[in-house]
Amino acid sequence: MNKEQLISQIKLKRSFLCIGLDTDIDKIPKHLLSFEDPIFEFNKQIIDATKDLCIAYKPNIAFYESMGVNGWNSLKRTLEYIPSDIFTIADAKRGDIGNTSQMYAKAFYQNMNFDSVTIAPYMGKDSVIPFLEFKDKWAIILALTSNVGSNDFQRSKLSDNYELFEKVLNVSKEWGNDNNIMYVVGATRSEKLSEVRKIIPNHFLLVPGIGTQGGSLDDVARYGMNEDCGIIVNSSRSIIYAGSNIDFANESRKIAKKIQYKMDVLLSDRGI
Amino acid sequence: MNKEQLISQIKLKRSFLCIGLDTDIDKIPKHLLSFEDPIFEFNKQIIDATKDLCIAYKPNIAFYESMGVNGWNSLKRTLEYIPSDIFTIADAKRGDIGNTSQMYAKAFYQNMNFDSVTIAPYMGKDSVIPFLEFKDKWAIILALTSNVGSNDFQRSKLSDNYELFEKVLNVSKEWGNDNNIMYVVGATRSEKLSEVRKIIPNHFLLVPGIGTQGGSLDDVARYGMNEDCGIIVNSSRSIIYAGSNIDFANESRKIAKKIQYKMDVLLSDRGI
Repeated sequence: MNKEQLISQIKLKRSFLCIGLDTDIDKIPKHLLSFEDPIFEFNKQIIDATKDLCIAYKPNIAFYESMGVNGWNSLKRTLEYIPSDIFTIADAKRGDIGNTSQMYAKAFYQNMNFDSVTIAPYMGKDSVIPFLEFKDKWAIILALTSNVGSNDFQRSKLSDNYELFEKVLNVSKEWGNDNNIMYVVGATRSEKLSEVRKIIPNHFLLVPGIGTQGGSLDDVARYGMNEDCGIIVNSSRSIIYAGSNIDFANESRKIAKKIQYKMDVLLSDRGI
Repeated sequence: MNKEQLISQIKLKRSFLCIGLDTDIDKIPKHLLSFEDPIFEFNKQIIDATKDLCIAYKPNIAFYESMGVNGWNSLKRTLEYIPSDIFTIADAKRGDIGNTSQMYAKAFYQNMNFDSVTIAPYMGKDSVIPFLEFKDKWAIILALTSNVGSNDFQRSKLSDNYELFEKVLNVSKEWGNDNNIMYVVGATRSEKLSEVRKIIPNHFLLVPGIGTQGGSLDDVARYGMNEDCGIIVNSSRSIIYAGSNIDFANESRKIAKKIQYKMDVLLSDRGI
């Protein structure tokens, strides 16, 4: 999916919500365990109940990988089930030397047809470039993440007074452009979003951390939105685990609907 | 495997060689393609031909992931085939927020019984801790990698004059100890190994980058060895793709034998 198509989906659905499909066999409603593929069945019902309210789905690959071969099958079926006008993010946080990153790019872009993959930048340029060489596919580079550990290195002060995550933005934006790179900036760091916007005014940001992790949607919109909207805000657990009974997907829909309603207002406030 | 067992294997085999099983369907000998599982068959023959010469095998997970479900099956069979006295490294470069890293730890340590996983440190402490909570399992944290891109961020000068990779060492060594953490330091950076040793004299180092990437085994030993040996030196492509005919594994053995012979001398020089 290219940038224009993504923006047009946001305008059409009045939403910039991404739903994180962090599907954990120990957390899904018990009645699903009798299905042949409970993980896919859970995802399918969540997708059916929310696909008109969100513009992206983001399976975190760890949850599937932890289930072995069955997990990969569930993930593949999930990807095939997601409507093609919805942006898909492989939250994989990959990154390796060039010839190896190429293999990961192949795994996610070609074999599973994801639109994008999240990338850890620690290994530098040659670990990211292979993810930028596919038409209408996106590398989503970790800049400032939503977890406590983001203070350990991402916020390290450099000798030129920048923090490391700012250097990551400044350096990596030259490797591609705002049509093939997005950045992860956590909602729990919303006060930093205006600094991020000074460095990359036009790139889309993937913003995790509202919901269970406690970030504020209003703050994210205030400091992070640009004239294209420019943000994709993710919520995982607080939506997908909203219910635990037979009607769980409807409970998820209610939470997603509340968020989408707020997003509609925030878009209108910006004249989008 | 614990540290004592690893050291005793090194002394027994007179080797600190790790062989990287970066098995690429496009690079293996053509006659293997008629096997039901060519990737596993290749690995099996390499393992049979080299298991007395090396102390570790390191499959890079990208190569298996790029093959989808078949790749995961080949990986699982490979792990089951590796003799239990050989250290196994999932070269996965994972790392995510706490509850997600836990899933990766489960995938590699429990489901596949790897001894260790390589970890990218960008997301900080809570992304690494879940990998330290399994008895006799190891987190191998990226410090200074062998690729060109390691200059982009790992060598960034911080305000206190340290480079980022040195901070990664200094901070992360407090999260565990030399019985559950190792570090990746590339052989192409051997001049930096003595600086690394000042910060972590006792930790094992995983050193990739001899062979195809051009690092020198002598330099790595000179600057990186400690009285326990303390280094595991990896070579992938230059060993596993040494031959391309029916006797490919024997060609691999010849290269591995040459390296092991050098390692024997280097160990003896150190009185190990």
